[in-house]
Formats: sequence, C-alpha cells, structure tokens
Amino acid sequence: MINEAVKKDSLTRLKKIEGQIRGIMRMIEDEKYCIDIINQISAAEKALSGVSKIVMKRHVESCVTGAILKGEGEEMIEELMDTVFKFAGIGKK
Amino acid sequence: MINEAVKKDSLTRLKKIEGQIRGIMRMIEDEKYCIDIINQISAAEKALSGVSKIVMKRHVESCVTGAILKGEGEEMIEELMDTVFKFAGIGKK
Amino acid sequence: MINEAVKKDSLTRLKKIEGQIRGIMRMIEDEKYCIDIINQISAAEKALSGVSKIVMKRHVESCVTGAILKGEGEEMIEELMDTVFKFAGIGKK
Amino acid sequence: MINEAVKKDSLTRLKKIEGQIRGIMRMIEDEKYCIDIINQISAAEKALSGVSKIVMKRHVESCVTGAILKGEGEEMIEELMDTVFKFAGIGKK
Repeated sequence: MINEAVKKDSLTRLKKIEGQIRGIMRMIEDEKYCIDIINQISAAEKALSGVSKIVMKRHVESCVTGAILKGEGEEMIEELMDTVFKFAGIGKK
Repeated sequence: MINEAVKKDSLTRLKKIEGQIRGIMRMIEDEKYCIDIINQISAAEKALSGVSKIVMKRHVESCVTGAILKGEGEEMIEELMDTVFKFAGIGKK
Repeated sequence: MINEAVKKDSLTRLKKIEGQIRGIMRMIEDEKYCIDIINQISAAEKALSGVSKIVMKRHVESCVTGAILKGEGEEMIEELMDTVFKFAGIGKK
Repeated sequence: MINEAVKKDSLTRLKKIEGQIRGIMRMIEDEKYCIDIINQISAAEKALSGVSKIVMKRHVESCVTGAILKGEGEEMIEELMDTVFKFAGIGKK
C-alpha cells in the first residue's frame, strides 16, 4: 500500500501535471504551433509515467514483497507482470 | 495550424483529462490499491495520446501539406518524423 | 516507394539485427542473467524501430508527397497517421 | 535464473523472429509497399517483447523472489524497476 512519502511525492507531481494540462489547453486556445503542442503533451505523458514508476516501486516493496514472504507471491507476480506489459504497450503486441 | 474543429475536440478531451488527473489524486489520498492507480494513470496517458493524434493529423493536413505544395516539404517532413519517433519512444532507441 | 539508398541502409541494419537475435539465443542457451537478456532484447527492438524510421521517412518523402501533389493526399495521410499511432502503441490507448 | 521451460519457449519464439527478420529483408529487396514493411517490423518488435515478458516473469519468480526471501530484495527490486521503466520507454521520460 502507498505510504506517506509516496503519497506526498505523487500528489506534488500530479499537481504539476494538472498545471501542464492547463498550459496545453491555453496553447490550443492560442493556436500555437502543432509540433510545440505535441511536445508539451509528450512532456505531460512522461511526467505521468514518472508517477506510475514511484507507485509501482512502492507496490513491489510492500504488497508483492509481503505476499512473497507469506509464500503467496504467485498471483501478485502475475498481476504485476500483466500491468507492466500492458503499461509498456505490450498487451497490444 | 489548428482549426476550430480540432480546437473544440482537443479542449473537450483535455478538460476530461484534467478530471482524470484529479481522480487519480483522490485515489492516492484515499490510499487505493496501487495497481488500480497505475491503471488510471495509463488511461490518462492514453487519453493524452489521443489528443496528440488529432493535433498531429491536423498538422499534416495543413502545414505539411501546404509546405509540400509549395515545394518546401523537406524540412517539415524531417521535423514530423523526429516528433513521431520521439513520441513513439524511439528517440531513446 | 523504397529507393536504393534506403534499401541498402535497411538491409545492412536488418543483417545486424539478425546477428543480435542469434546473440540473444546464445545468451538464453548459456543461461545468462535475465536482466542482461532483457537489455539485449530492448536493443534489438530499438534497432528495428530505427529501420521503421528510415522506411517511414522515405514513404512520406515519396508516396505521401506524390499523393499530396496530385491533390489526393487525404487517404494516404489517414493511413500514415494510423500507422504512426499503432506503432507508438496508441492503437491500444 | 532461466529454467528449461522458459529456455525452450524463448528459443522457439526467437527462431520464429529470425524468420520474420528474413521476411522483412525479402520485402525490402522486393520493394514492397512501405506501410506493409513497417507493419511487419512492428510485428517483429511485438514478438520480441513477448520474449522479454516471459524472461522477466521468470526473473521475478526466481531471482527476485529468492532475494526477498533472504531479506535482500531491495537492490533487485531497484534493478527490476529500472529495467521495466527503461523498457517501457520511461527512462527517456
């Protein structure tokens, strides 16, 4: 489960991402150059992936580790791999 | 350049994405299950990519097409390919 | 359509990728460390994306440009965008 | 470490991927339609990711699980997360 450190870090990052989304909306309203808009969208996606990374690391350190120590890791590892590869766009592959 | 149709469609989508980001923040505050949080983050990334797609399509139909018709497509095609492959994560590759 | 320069460059790259695939097979037969195997697989994927990039660039410079100059770009742009976003894993998104 | 089942499955898949690479080389020699070539390259990348998935799953079930049971999971989890996110193209992000 999420702990205080990950909660704080994630929320700070998501707050910033919210600002990025609003910035992209302004760029579109102001009819900025398309490639610049796309680059800002990519930056927001990258920032979102950064949040996924810290949440997933915490998940492995807490829930998955806990399940493995109780000898019940199998199902959690299955779920983790499915999430990782869906995330990496390999579900589609 | 962006036209009214793309502007309206993009802004509607980004408004919805803003709501998704806030939803993810609530999930983190409520300490929801990590895998559920990660799945919601992936959904927001997917929605952002959808915005990129319509902006890029418009860019090719307007700016790139215009440049090609003037016999000046080369630089724009170069820029488009760089954006496409950076976007696809192939810059890193 | 592909020209001689792109053909030669692509084939050289694919020949090298064939060697990378055989190298990965040897790593698996020799039971090398999993993370090292995964890193080599990523390198081969990256090299394949490099081939896609040069083929796509050529496609835009020849077929797409030709269609636009004949006033028939619409369908080709549609097909290009579908390929780009499927490629970027956004079909799934 | 890789076991016999994963070894056999991986090698069968990689043998097939080798054939895909050769097929792409023939398509390029025969100057096939660029979009068809790109789609075959994407199929080969998808197949490679499938190999990564089974190797990574095995790694988590064996090495990572073993390290966690010995109370030494930290470093392995760190390495796993780095690999996952590099793989997903988030290193670049």
